[in-house]
Amino acid sequence: MDEAGFLAALQAFPLHAGARGLNDDVALVGDLVVTTDTQVEGVHFLPADPAADVAWKLVATNLSDLAAKGAAVEGVTLNYPLSAADWDAAFLVGLREVLAAHACPLIGGDTVTLPAGAPRILTVTAFGRSSAAPARSGARAGDALWVTGTIGDAGAGLAIARGRAGSPALLAAYRRPRPCLVEGAALAPVVGAMMDVSDGLLIDAARMAATSDVAVTIDLGAVPLSDPYRAFAGDDPVAAATAGDDYQLLFALPSGVAPPVAATRVGTFATGAGLALVRDGMAVPLPASLGYRHGLRNA
Amino acid sequence: MDEAGFLAALQAFPLHAGARGLNDDVALVGDLVVTTDTQVEGVHFLPADPAADVAWKLVATNLSDLAAKGAAVEGVTLNYPLSAADWDAAFLVGLREVLAAHACPLIGGDTVTLPAGAPRILTVTAFGRSSAAPARSGARAGDALWVTGTIGDAGAGLAIARGRAGSPALLAAYRRPRPCLVEGAALAPVVGAMMDVSDGLLIDAARMAATSDVAVTIDLGAVPLSDPYRAFAGDDPVAAATAGDDYQLLFALPSGVAPPVAATRVGTFATGAGLALVRDGMAVPLPASLGYRHGLRNA
Repeated sequence: MDEAGFLAALQAFPLHAGARGLNDDVALVGDLVVTTDTQVEGVHFLPADPAADVAWKLVATNLSDLAAKGAAVEGVTLNYPLSAADWDAAFLVGLREVLAAHACPLIGGDTVTLPAGAPRILTVTAFGRSSAAPARSGARAGDALWVTGTIGDAGAGLAIARGRAGSPALLAAYRRPRPCLVEGAALAPVVGAMMDVSDGLLIDAARMAATSDVAVTIDLGAVPLSDPYRAFAGDDPVAAATAGDDYQLLFALPSGVAPPVAATRVGTFATGAGLALVRDGMAVPLPASLGYRHGLRNA
Repeated sequence: MDEAGFLAALQAFPLHAGARGLNDDVALVGDLVVTTDTQVEGVHFLPADPAADVAWKLVATNLSDLAAKGAAVEGVTLNYPLSAADWDAAFLVGLREVLAAHACPLIGGDTVTLPAGAPRILTVTAFGRSSAAPARSGARAGDALWVTGTIGDAGAGLAIARGRAGSPALLAAYRRPRPCLVEGAALAPVVGAMMDVSDGLLIDAARMAATSDVAVTIDLGAVPLSDPYRAFAGDDPVAAATAGDDYQLLFALPSGVAPPVAATRVGTFATGAGLALVRDGMAVPLPASLGYRHGLRNA
């Protein structure tokens, strides 16, 4: 079954009042913001990726979902498959680093053993507190679409992890993403909609537009690219905006309102539906793939 | 790395105030009781087990941890690896059944795809609310040890699932355990300590004693065995008490206090440390294995 079919089936189940229709990055449970993310060896990370980096990224991507809701970090639970002693020990080093870097205590978890040769499947569930928790669905016609930081660095870093030569900064963007917790906390009270860019700027913007019941146009010339990215991939905003793993914040603000953090305006919402691209004022066809789809995003 | 070493390493991390030292079945986060459990194909369930039963058991075992804290069910998140369409469809049928049977709404989750041939690894995190949430660690010298229901039925059911002939009731005990939510809610305000029997009566009683810093003696003659169990395995309380998957509630009460639900007194706590067995007033040696160990139990 594909994920869309599975998700549609779940959406017909009795849902919790804070489940947000299984269409958001988080759920609201009690006084908490909750998000969960599973990463699979050979799918979400490479078997050769250092275990410490796998730990970092697993936690950081969950905290990024909290950041997108302006939440303060409460803690995480970990579901962990024990394997080789050296890999487990290195994982613990990276886990300690990422938790310390974000003042994130451990809440609990579960350890399991795997059949011989099975790929590792790791889950983290992150808990936070937010007074605002903006949804994906609040973008309005006329709003501007903004993004923090630069886009495409992690995608270039993945190519480097797979063997191409390139900047260590790009590899670090892929292996050790930084959740935008400070930016998210500043943005949450003022934005109409917010999410993190996990699967690619284009696909995630399209998702924000779809769940907000509006159309979105992105100006490819405005997509913020880093100098290391340009040195690696040239001026290729389409590749950058479809690569994923950026973990920047994507948000909607009424036109004319300046964001309270450094960000780049990349698009505009309008009545209608769908995603359109322009560059230098001219329409640009959509690429065959808008990004990387790897699952139900909610909670 | 073995689970004891991994757990010990995690216990040296900064822990959440509600983590209970990673020694309990749950954590307390905000106003919620949280527990998480991962089940692995080929380890926690058989590849031939019906997918609907896998779904049932995955949710029911998490709700059993809530039951052990007297918690009312708030909902669950699901981390699910998509696979064959027929398996996924059957899983959804069982998931809907177990959620409906316990008035448990879906909060959210994550879906992933697996490399070809990888065993399924499924995680559920359950959320509840409890005003009491008794820990494992509250048993005192002189307390009596009690257990609900009967012990060993699921272990016999596992043997039947693997091909032996036997009662459908035993197979159902293995595949569709019933979390003791009603019993747990009645017991939580009055017990000194409570947990569910997941890995075996002996090992779980030993864990309660160890974390409570007391010794425990279990009377094998008092271990409650069902008629179907006796018909299948004879009068073998050691096999029953080391098989696991019972999901009955194990709890400590001051001597002379009767529990508010149907239960059997199976032992006594005393000063000291460790587990001892008696039958007909005579000491009995400990079996080589006290139960099934498959991971960090907390949260």
